[in-house]
Amino acid sequence: MYQRVTPVPTVITVRQGVSAAHPAAVSPGHLILRMSSRALGVTVADEAASFRTQTSYDADPVFVMHRGGKIGVEPTVDVPDRAALAMAYTPGVARVCSAIADQPELAGEYTWTGNTVAVVSDGTAVLGLGDIGPAAAMPVMEGKALLFKKFAGINAVPICIDVTDVDAVVAVVTALAPSFGGINLEDISAPRCFEIEDRLRAALDIPVMHDDQHGTAIVALAALRSAGRVVGKELGAMRAVVCGAGASGIAVSKILLAAGIGEIGLADSKGMIYDGRDGLNPVKAALARVTNASGFAGAPEAALRDADVFIGLSGATLPEDALARMAPGAIAFLLSNPEPEIHPEVARRHAAVVATGRSDFPNQINNSLAFPGVFRAALDVRATAITENMKLAAADAIAALVGDDAAPEYVIPSQFDERVAPAVAAAVAAQARLDGVARSSRPIAETAILSGATNAVSPGGTTPRTPRD
Amino acid sequence: MYQRVTPVPTVITVRQGVSAAHPAAVSPGHLILRMSSRALGVTVADEAASFRTQTSYDADPVFVMHRGGKIGVEPTVDVPDRAALAMAYTPGVARVCSAIADQPELAGEYTWTGNTVAVVSDGTAVLGLGDIGPAAAMPVMEGKALLFKKFAGINAVPICIDVTDVDAVVAVVTALAPSFGGINLEDISAPRCFEIEDRLRAALDIPVMHDDQHGTAIVALAALRSAGRVVGKELGAMRAVVCGAGASGIAVSKILLAAGIGEIGLADSKGMIYDGRDGLNPVKAALARVTNASGFAGAPEAALRDADVFIGLSGATLPEDALARMAPGAIAFLLSNPEPEIHPEVARRHAAVVATGRSDFPNQINNSLAFPGVFRAALDVRATAITENMKLAAADAIAALVGDDAAPEYVIPSQFDERVAPAVAAAVAAQARLDGVARSSRPIAETAILSGATNAVSPGGTTPRTPRD
Repeated sequence: MYQRVTPVPTVITVRQGVSAAHPAAVSPGHLILRMSSRALGVTVADEAASFRTQTSYDADPVFVMHRGGKIGVEPTVDVPDRAALAMAYTPGVARVCSAIADQPELAGEYTWTGNTVAVVSDGTAVLGLGDIGPAAAMPVMEGKALLFKKFAGINAVPICIDVTDVDAVVAVVTALAPSFGGINLEDISAPRCFEIEDRLRAALDIPVMHDDQHGTAIVALAALRSAGRVVGKELGAMRAVVCGAGASGIAVSKILLAAGIGEIGLADSKGMIYDGRDGLNPVKAALARVTNASGFAGAPEAALRDADVFIGLSGATLPEDALARMAPGAIAFLLSNPEPEIHPEVARRHAAVVATGRSDFPNQINNSLAFPGVFRAALDVRATAITENMKLAAADAIAALVGDDAAPEYVIPSQFDERVAPAVAAAVAAQARLDGVARSSRPIAETAILSGATNAVSPGGTTPRTPRD
Repeated sequence: MYQRVTPVPTVITVRQGVSAAHPAAVSPGHLILRMSSRALGVTVADEAASFRTQTSYDADPVFVMHRGGKIGVEPTVDVPDRAALAMAYTPGVARVCSAIADQPELAGEYTWTGNTVAVVSDGTAVLGLGDIGPAAAMPVMEGKALLFKKFAGINAVPICIDVTDVDAVVAVVTALAPSFGGINLEDISAPRCFEIEDRLRAALDIPVMHDDQHGTAIVALAALRSAGRVVGKELGAMRAVVCGAGASGIAVSKILLAAGIGEIGLADSKGMIYDGRDGLNPVKAALARVTNASGFAGAPEAALRDADVFIGLSGATLPEDALARMAPGAIAFLLSNPEPEIHPEVARRHAAVVATGRSDFPNQINNSLAFPGVFRAALDVRATAITENMKLAAADAIAALVGDDAAPEYVIPSQFDERVAPAVAAAVAAQARLDGVARSSRPIAETAILSGATNAVSPGGTTPRTPRD
C-alpha cells in the first residue's frame, strides 16, 4: 500500500484528500469518517521535516482516528447572506444581549448554554495513567464530549486546565460557569476531587458532577441491584467489601450506603478502613464512622470471607482463594481498568455474577450509562444541583431496564442500549422536581427534541422517591 | 397565525416540532434552519408558568433564530459499535494520551486543539452596549464562533468568564490554554484589554489576539490603502485624525503608524491627545509621544481642518461642517456602531470616500474580514504569536484583493467574498515563517482541508515583508 523512499524513520502520511475533496465530506456538520480514510491509501511523505510528528503513530488505527480530534463546533443556524448575518451577529444580536442583560435566565433559552456542559479535567488522574497533565488528558475529554452528544444530544466542551491547586481549580471553573449549563468534572485525583466538587457545588447554581465518582457509583448500584435479583439477595441483606478508596471507591461506598446496603467495608492501600485508624484523610475518616460495622482490620482478604459482594476499584490484584471464600452467590465487580483485579473467567468459577469495566466481557460497568441521562435531565429541568436522590433514581432506572431479565451475564444494559439515556433522564428529571432543584417544568421531550438529541427522551417507568433530608 | 387565550401577557410558543420531527433535522451535524421554523405555525402556550421566558421575544425573528443558540459540538468520527468506541474512548484512547504525555507537541495533531480557538470575553465592553456581563455577552461570542467556522473552518468555543480583575482574567485564560490552539479576546474594555492582551501574549506560546483592537485595525488599514488609491494619496502623505482612544482607536492608530502614515492625531473624550496632557493612561501617554506631531489640542474639529483622513471610533457625533473643512479628497471612516458619527449620505457630500461599520451602506469595515484568515494561518503554522508584521500582511492581502478596482464605493471586499480568508491566511502564514514564529512548515492547504474549512486556503499573491525589529 505504500512505498518507502528512505529506510528510516518510517514517516507515513495518511492522505485524507480523497474523502476531504468530496464536497459533502467537508461541509460543516457532516460526519467525517476518518476511520475509513486509512483504507484510501498511504504514501511516504516527501517532507520529513514538515511531518515530524506524523511518525509511526499513523500505523495505529487509533491514532488515525484521532488525527485532528474527534469533535468540532458547527453552526446550527444558516447565515447565507447579509440579512441573516445581521440577525446572527451585529446589529441584531445586540437585542438578544440586551434581553439577557435585563433578564439573565433568558441565557438558557437564547444561547447554547442551556444545552451545553463543560467536561473539565486538570489531568491529574487520567484513566489508569495517573497525573499526565491537561494536554494529555484532552483525548479522553473529547471522547466524553462525543458520548455526550451521541447518547444525550448535549453539547460538551472539553476543558483541560493547567492548574492543580484546589483553590485555583475552583476559581477557574467558577469563572467559566456563565458559559455552561452544567459542569462535568473528570479525571481529577482524590482526595482533591472531593473538596473541588463540594466547593463548586456550593458556589454554583448549575449542576456539578464529578463523573469518576458518581457516574461509576450510579452504574455500580444499578448492576448490584440486578445482581441481587440473580442471586436472590436484597441489598439490605448484603455485606460488601470495596477495595480502593479513591474517587470512585468512596463514591460507590456512599451510594451503596444511601441505597441501604446491609454492611460495607472499604480498604485502601494500607488495609481495611476503620474508625480511628492512622493515615485517614477527612473523607475516609468520615466514611470510617459509618462503614465496617464488623470492625475488620488489615488486609481485605479477611473481610472478604463470607462477604456477599466484592467491588474492586484500586488497580490491585485479588487472590483467587480470597474470592473462593466469599459467601455462596458471591458478586464480584472487578472494575480496575484496563486490567481487572482477577481474570473474569477465573472469577466466574467462584462468583455467581462477575462484572468488569471492559467491553470484551459480559456486564460492563461503564459511566456512559449514567452521565448522558443525568445531565440531559439536569439541563432539561434547569436543575440547580444534582442531588443524592437523583443519583439513586438514575441507578434505579438503569436497573429497571434489566428488570426480570437479570441473569448472571446480564446485570447491566449495553452502552448502546438506546433505552438507557431516556429512561435515566426521565427518572432523574422527575426526582429533581420532587427534590425542589428544578427551575423549569418544561416537558423533557420537547427540550430534548429542540436540542437535537439522537435518542428522544420519553417518560420512564420508575417511581420517583420521596425527598430525603 | 395564533390564538390568544389570555389578554396579557403575550405568551407565545413557537413550535419547532415540525422540522424537529423530520429525522434529518435532528441528526447530529445537520444544519437546523431555525429561521424557517417560525413560518411553521405558532400556538398559544397552555402552560404559561412553564414557558415564562418565552414571552413576546418570539415575535422577533432574531430571537427565534437564537433559540437554543447558534452553534453545537458535533462528533467528527463515527462510533457505531463497541469496536469503534474502544478506539475513540477507553481503552484505545489511552495510547493517544500516553503519546501526548511523552511528546506534548502531538496534542496539536491528535486532538482538536490544533484547529480550535477560544473566543474569550468578560462581558465588559460588548458591542455598543458596554459592561453587560458575561452571560449577556454569549450571543456575540456564539456569533463569532459561527463565523470562525463559516469563513475559516476553525472550531471556536465561546468562553464568557465571570471575572473582570486583570489578574484574574489572565489567570483564568492562562489555565485554559492547554485546551486551545489560540485565544481570541473579545469585547474587553479599555484600558484593561491592553494589559490583559500583553500579559497573555507573554505568558502563552499560542497566538493571542484581542480582535476589537487588531481585527478592526487590520481592516481599517486595508480600507485606507484602497481609499488612498481612489483619491491618489500615498499613506505617507496622509494626515489622519482618530476620534476615540478605546481598544480599537488605539490599535488603529498603532497599525497606521506601523504602516507609515504621514501623521496621525488621536482624540479621546477630553480632546486631542498630546504629550504631557493631563488624564492620560499609560497607553495613551505612550501614543502621545509618537502621534500628533502638529501639536493639536482641544476639540478634534480644529485638527480635522485640512486633514486627509477621519476615523471615528468613539460613538460621538461629528458636525457636518468639520467634515466639510477637511482637505480635498477627504476619507471618512465612520465606524461607530450602530450609529455612525454622521449619516453616511451626509458625509458623502464632503468626503471622497466614506466607510462605516454597517452592512447597509457601501464599504463595511468589519472584523470578519480579518480574524478568520489570521487565525487560520496562525493555527496552520502553529504560530507562537501574532506579530505586528502578520497584522500588516493581513491588511495588505485584503487591500490587494480590491487592487485596481478600488472605487469610492469599493475600498474593501464584502464579508462574503470567499477570496478573503484564504488570501489573508496565505499572507499571514508566509509572514509568520519570515518572522520566525511558525512552528510547523506544513503546507497550509492540506491543513485547511484536514480541518474541513469551507473555503479552501490557497497561496495568495501578496509579497511577505521583511521582518522588522
